[in-house]
Amino acid sequence: MAKGDGGSKKKSQSKASKKSKKDRRGDGPVVGVDVGGTKVLARLIDPETGEADGWAKASTPKTGLDDLFNTVEEVIDELLDGRSSMKDVSAVGIGVPGPVDGDGLVFKCPNINGWDQPIQLAEVMGDRLGVDVVVSNDVNCGAVAEHRVGAGKGADSLLAVFVGTGVGGGLVLDGKLVVGARGMVGEIGHMTVEPGGRPCGCGGTGHLECYAGRAGIDREVRRRTEAGASPFLLDLVGSSPIKSRHIQAGVEAEDPLTVELVDEAVHALAQAIGNAASLLDIPVVVLGGGIVDRLGQKFLDDITGSPRFGGFGPDITRLVLAERLDDAGAIGAALLAGED
Amino acid sequence: MAKGDGGSKKKSQSKASKKSKKDRRGDGPVVGVDVGGTKVLARLIDPETGEADGWAKASTPKTGLDDLFNTVEEVIDELLDGRSSMKDVSAVGIGVPGPVDGDGLVFKCPNINGWDQPIQLAEVMGDRLGVDVVVSNDVNCGAVAEHRVGAGKGADSLLAVFVGTGVGGGLVLDGKLVVGARGMVGEIGHMTVEPGGRPCGCGGTGHLECYAGRAGIDREVRRRTEAGASPFLLDLVGSSPIKSRHIQAGVEAEDPLTVELVDEAVHALAQAIGNAASLLDIPVVVLGGGIVDRLGQKFLDDITGSPRFGGFGPDITRLVLAERLDDAGAIGAALLAGED
Repeated sequence: MAKGDGGSKKKSQSKASKKSKKDRRGDGPVVGVDVGGTKVLARLIDPETGEADGWAKASTPKTGLDDLFNTVEEVIDELLDGRSSMKDVSAVGIGVPGPVDGDGLVFKCPNINGWDQPIQLAEVMGDRLGVDVVVSNDVNCGAVAEHRVGAGKGADSLLAVFVGTGVGGGLVLDGKLVVGARGMVGEIGHMTVEPGGRPCGCGGTGHLECYAGRAGIDREVRRRTEAGASPFLLDLVGSSPIKSRHIQAGVEAEDPLTVELVDEAVHALAQAIGNAASLLDIPVVVLGGGIVDRLGQKFLDDITGSPRFGGFGPDITRLVLAERLDDAGAIGAALLAGED
Repeated sequence: MAKGDGGSKKKSQSKASKKSKKDRRGDGPVVGVDVGGTKVLARLIDPETGEADGWAKASTPKTGLDDLFNTVEEVIDELLDGRSSMKDVSAVGIGVPGPVDGDGLVFKCPNINGWDQPIQLAEVMGDRLGVDVVVSNDVNCGAVAEHRVGAGKGADSLLAVFVGTGVGGGLVLDGKLVVGARGMVGEIGHMTVEPGGRPCGCGGTGHLECYAGRAGIDREVRRRTEAGASPFLLDLVGSSPIKSRHIQAGVEAEDPLTVELVDEAVHALAQAIGNAASLLDIPVVVLGGGIVDRLGQKFLDDITGSPRFGGFGPDITRLVLAERLDDAGAIGAALLAGED
């Protein structure tokens, strides 16, 4: 880390980064930034009430990490324009699409160009912004948003499951986000639900996300259609990836292949969620992500009604739809920064 | 709770229980008591080093909870006889065979006569003993003993799995024991490994403990022997329950039924442990209990070699044999009391 090596801006950054967290914290608003594979979104929240105010966003640059970090600064500047100045902000939270340890070390972000090495992002951005920065995984931020100000408000513990291209999860136990030494706590998508089953992108077989994630469903649709199953979905998408709206269309049209694959997704989610909830004494599981948003409450009812929803799940756990949608990452990042 | 209602002993207890935890704690040794279904075992440890010194035990009374609590006091008196007096003891930890919340509320203990109602045992025994009392589940105490002074020493997180009549587990995440609001965190025995599989004592089907627990194996041996499988095990035990030593004998004699059932236990453990370890980013899983002690390292090697040991398990998790055997509950209870 270059510290105090010339230039007035760098000097002030260096000074800020040398202060302790306590010294640097004020009572001002907190900024949350969600760094995604396609966009960077920032929101401002009141750490007392959790209420969000204003937003700014930009496309994620594909030209390297220095450009990405500049974009984060620019998006924050745009967010604050006319509201507050950086010196009123008490902390910044950043969510990123990769594993992060408890100290803000990001191990890698496979969906961001050039981010294949560990970076101590909390320090890097803390030096750039001259304010305390807390960094967490984006799915974990989503779990925190649901726990503090969303569908899981008031629960002692919560598992959030986000069903998208893959299946990710975040875990709050006894009120606290749990991340693990490698930042990998909550990876429910790689729990085995069918030993020896469908191949997974990670090299394993039979994992939850092969059955419930869009990429797994897409692969299976192409395989089964080639083998003679209903061409409904492939007629819709051709060689483009299947989106959640196509799956919704297939369900509404009662296309047999779509219905069968959604059924398999339901049973896989039921088994993994029942197991995770029993192992961890979880009262509330929040489900979100494209497919869940499209299929809604009936999808959740099918999961809890599945014979595979086992263990203590049926006795102790209720499933609820996520409430915070596009901004959950930014809100959760801000809440974590405000609490730290 | 009767407080200060006469008698010098009760007065001093009442006074003690009104002090804050900090006031009541000294630097003296800590007593750990493991209350089991058949015996009550106490040990004295040095909270600084974790080293244990001396032990005392008695049979668990079947005549109600008041007698049980008297027995706990008597066993502690016997343990301290000639070493320390109760006023030198800085805290007492008690492990019990039932779910306990983070405040020492025991919900029930099915294996102890008359314990079918919730009891705030930390308060009850704190008042009786006049010292700070910490209560935890016995399996959780075992997990803490393995984490602090056993096979998992130095690990950030640890899952302990005890394979006995059933299968229990305890979870340490980022150095801290996790218990959950209902005290049920770690119940790996009720994770589903075979949807629609063998019936479980809890009313579910296909749970880990139906395949790896002695009770589940016993039921399956009787069912299959009746259907014509090898009578080796039933020739050994008749109508008595199958013990771990009989399973060991069956393995050593290469009895086909025993080998098959142990194989099924191995795969069930592999699947549940792989799933729990991936979900929770666990570097070390400690295995203990009768069957594990008997079958030893080869049993662990078979688990990690099973194709069902999936998820991120093979990449991030190593399995080790428990090191603390009979006294793990008492030691872990004492360690928790010393740290609280």
